[in-house]
Amino acid sequence: MTDWTTHTARARAWFESLRDRICAEFESIEREAGSDAAFSYTPWQREHHGEPVENGGGGVQGLMKGKVFEKVGVNVSTVHGAFSPEFARTINGADPENPEFTATGISLVAHMANPHVPAVHMNTRFLTTRKAWFGGGGDLNPPLPYEQDTADFHARFKAACDAHDPAYHPRFKAWADDYFFIPHRKVHRGVGGIFYDHLECADDAAFEANFAFTRDVGEAFLDVYPRLVRRRMNQPFDAREELQMLEWRGRYAEFNLVHDRGTLFGLKTGGNIDAILMSLPPRAVWS
Amino acid sequence: MTDWTTHTARARAWFESLRDRICAEFESIEREAGSDAAFSYTPWQREHHGEPVENGGGGVQGLMKGKVFEKVGVNVSTVHGAFSPEFARTINGADPENPEFTATGISLVAHMANPHVPAVHMNTRFLTTRKAWFGGGGDLNPPLPYEQDTADFHARFKAACDAHDPAYHPRFKAWADDYFFIPHRKVHRGVGGIFYDHLECADDAAFEANFAFTRDVGEAFLDVYPRLVRRRMNQPFDAREELQMLEWRGRYAEFNLVHDRGTLFGLKTGGNIDAILMSLPPRAVWS
Repeated sequence: MTDWTTHTARARAWFESLRDRICAEFESIEREAGSDAAFSYTPWQREHHGEPVENGGGGVQGLMKGKVFEKVGVNVSTVHGAFSPEFARTINGADPENPEFTATGISLVAHMANPHVPAVHMNTRFLTTRKAWFGGGGDLNPPLPYEQDTADFHARFKAACDAHDPAYHPRFKAWADDYFFIPHRKVHRGVGGIFYDHLECADDAAFEANFAFTRDVGEAFLDVYPRLVRRRMNQPFDAREELQMLEWRGRYAEFNLVHDRGTLFGLKTGGNIDAILMSLPPRAVWS
Repeated sequence: MTDWTTHTARARAWFESLRDRICAEFESIEREAGSDAAFSYTPWQREHHGEPVENGGGGVQGLMKGKVFEKVGVNVSTVHGAFSPEFARTINGADPENPEFTATGISLVAHMANPHVPAVHMNTRFLTTRKAWFGGGGDLNPPLPYEQDTADFHARFKAACDAHDPAYHPRFKAWADDYFFIPHRKVHRGVGGIFYDHLECADDAAFEANFAFTRDVGEAFLDVYPRLVRRRMNQPFDAREELQMLEWRGRYAEFNLVHDRGTLFGLKTGGNIDAILMSLPPRAVWS
């Protein structure tokens, strides 16, 4: 069995450096809007039944409440341990007899003050069980969608995908459309993006290829999303548009609490509750 | 096998008459506060994959947005059909070979404008599969708890229970404490009340006893809750107290979307989405 320790350390270092660059960029946007908002960072340790797990890892939750970013959370975590036997059955390459895992990743959700500015989610991760794989994606969640924003978001992720495999973008875009869907409402939670999982690393060459792709997904996000924010952040809005945003956020909360796999993974593996639920909107309404 | 048609019709008639009395009382409270708010009623039919189910039943969703009641939903539904084989395994007396069911019940959730006034939930129901049983309960959800309100609420349900079986209240109060708990937050969603289920009707005598108990649970609710509302509805509150209420409502939404059995039952049996999610708060915040 491959020892994935070094690979996990490299992935983690990348996720942390990406976090630093994204947070710096988001703080720059706040400066441009005349705000001095900054991220605060809270470290946490993995817990089991309320007790810290020795050598179980943990993470750092970054949170900023600003003028443009009503609430943005960026979490980097690196956890390891053993799945419960029951949960192991649901995870790629894990089984009740061999439930050890490591997981390192970055997860970001931004809810914006201006309803014309799209909310966004981005997450990439590297997991090892008896297998090792990358997964992740990003999706755009405009309360008031603009075709140009949607097209630019998709085009940038398509470019990142196409540089690695022309089959990636059609497949991963369709996967996002399938995943970011609220079955009980029969609506998508946003305008999509990409979603990929189980990008398996059978050997070192596969790891390098998948890691390079995952880095490019992060770069694509860092390139395109700040452009969309700057495009819309000064656009005036009225109370009716704000209400549309708040109702739309109610749907977003429903998706994350009822359906989201990442939320479930966090709750089942002793993740930090504030970090897991940072994705919830700062305000929401149900009419 | 007993034919439960008449029993179901009697239970349904009771739930509808209880609904009428509760709604009239809540509208009276609005009048006392100088508001002319009234319930609107929307009928719905049971659906499967977006198509109405012939003879599948349905319900009526009552909704009022007032001055005292920021949002109160009262739903009465009577549905019948067959569970999916997978879901049947999780339901008392149902199995994949024999998945027919009927369910009739009343469900109420009130979110109040004033943080000093407790929110509340009440639900009673009669179900038949190969078995037949009553279930239900009520729990008080004060954003800012008062000992006197909590004591009065518990005392009134205790009286209703004690008139039927001295073992009921300790058991059903403990069941509520167990059920209305948010595991991922490690907090209760409110100050409890009672919760009961599978109060089985092996014969007509058992049906009559359990039906009488279930009616008394409804009467207890109608007696005690309006008293608590009138006690607090004119108490002044400030922005900080309102924010506490909105944060507390975020927890309430988490409980209902992640854990609530009634929500799951509704989503799995083609219930009306607006009726099922009427329990969600009109406004909530996550800080």
